Amino acid sequence: MNRKQLIEEIFSKKSFLCVGLDTDTKKIPEHLLNTDDPIFEFNRAIIDATAPYCVAYKPNLAFYESAGLKGMAAFERTITYLTEAYPNHFVIADAKRGDIGNTSSMYARTFFEEYRLDAVTVAPYMGEDSVMPFLEYAGKWVILLALTSNKGSRDFQLTADAKGERLFEKVLQTSQHWGNDENMMYVVGATQGKMFEDIRRIVPNHFLLVPGVGAQGGSLHEVCRFGLNKDCGLLVNSSRGIIYADNTPAFASAAAEKARELQQEMAEELAGIR
Amino acid sequence: MNRKQLIEEIFSKKSFLCVGLDTDTKKIPEHLLNTDDPIFEFNRAIIDATAPYCVAYKPNLAFYESAGLKGMAAFERTITYLTEAYPNHFVIADAKRGDIGNTSSMYARTFFEEYRLDAVTVAPYMGEDSVMPFLEYAGKWVILLALTSNKGSRDFQLTADAKGERLFEKVLQTSQHWGNDENMMYVVGATQGKMFEDIRRIVPNHFLLVPGVGAQGGSLHEVCRFGLNKDCGLLVNSSRGIIYADNTPAFASAAAEKARELQQEMAEELAGIR
Repeated sequence: MNRKQLIEEIFSKKSFLCVGLDTDTKKIPEHLLNTDDPIFEFNRAIIDATAPYCVAYKPNLAFYESAGLKGMAAFERTITYLTEAYPNHFVIADAKRGDIGNTSSMYARTFFEEYRLDAVTVAPYMGEDSVMPFLEYAGKWVILLALTSNKGSRDFQLTADAKGERLFEKVLQTSQHWGNDENMMYVVGATQGKMFEDIRRIVPNHFLLVPGVGAQGGSLHEVCRFGLNKDCGLLVNSSRGIIYADNTPAFASAAAEKARELQQEMAEELAGIR
Repeated sequence: MNRKQLIEEIFSKKSFLCVGLDTDTKKIPEHLLNTDDPIFEFNRAIIDATAPYCVAYKPNLAFYESAGLKGMAAFERTITYLTEAYPNHFVIADAKRGDIGNTSSMYARTFFEEYRLDAVTVAPYMGEDSVMPFLEYAGKWVILLALTSNKGSRDFQLTADAKGERLFEKVLQTSQHWGNDENMMYVVGATQGKMFEDIRRIVPNHFLLVPGVGAQGGSLHEVCRFGLNKDCGLLVNSSRGIIYADNTPAFASAAAEKARELQQEMAEELAGIR
């Protein structure tokens, strides 16, 4: 999905919500555990219930890999279901990959050719040649970690160089030479508050993928105040707050309700810019 | 495998060679493509041929993931074969993972509980809480990226802060508070030459996992000159130079020969320290 299509989806649905499919068999409703593929059954119900309120889905690979081959089979079924039943939703593999060039090429092949996903999250530590192989696919996106939502983001990402440029700023600046706002987004945690202002100074037009609203404590309004641009420019992710809203057989409608609440807040924010 | 056992293996086999199982169906001998599981058949032959000359194996997950479920099944078969047939070899998942705490916990569960591997490579960008979940497993190891072998290592890893401390040095320093030389190693590329001196000043006792000898151009002698410590302290990895030494039906014996050559060089280097 290209930038123009994504923006159209956002304004037509009045939503920039991304639902994080961090599906853990230890947390899903018990009645699903008797089915052949509990992870997929859970995902399908969540997807069907939340699709009207969101523009993107983001399965985190860790949750599928930890369930072994069964988990990866459930991941593949989920992706296939999404691309067939909801072709207008943007699908992100949250994988945080990044390796030397020939290995990153293998990861790119997996996510873009094998799974036909729209985007993959990539860690910047290994630099240019670890990221470039992902940018060789037309219509596909790299979502590079810039300033993450977790406590450990302070350990290295905020370290300033001799000129006062912090590492996350250097990542934003340097990666401008690798891609552009048509094939690159950045991860910026919702917990980072006013740092969004500093980030928008460097990347005014890029989309930002924003985790950390909800369970991790970030505020949607705060994120919008500093992060929205004229094209919206945000995909705000919520995982646990939506998918685990309830663990009875009514879990999917509870998830839909949480997604709808966020969508309505987002509609208000979007009304302010267009 | 703990540190003491690893050191014993190294001095008993006079080798600190790690064979990288970066198995790509586009590169393995043609006659294997007719078997049910070409990736596993290739790996088994390479393992049987090289086991006498190495102390560790390092499958890179990218190569298995890119072959989809079949690839992951081949990965699991390889790991099971290694742990059953060669229980005294140290097995590293080269995965370069790292995510927020609850997600890193899922990755740790995958690699240490599901696959029972000895070690996993982890990217440091997201800081302490992205690494700690891997350190909660007794007898298991984190191998943290410090100064990698690729060209892109210069983009961020060499950036100095106001006091002149470079990012890779800050990673080495900071992570001393997270683990110790019994549960943490560092990735340092063989292409980094004299930088090993700077690294040994900060982590004199830790093991370093050194990729980049061979195909990437690093010199074993140079690495040893600056990187060896009294316990050896090095695991030197070679992937393509060994496993793709030949692509005829004689590929395994060609791989054994390449591994033996490296082992003999290593025996000479070890003779100099004990």
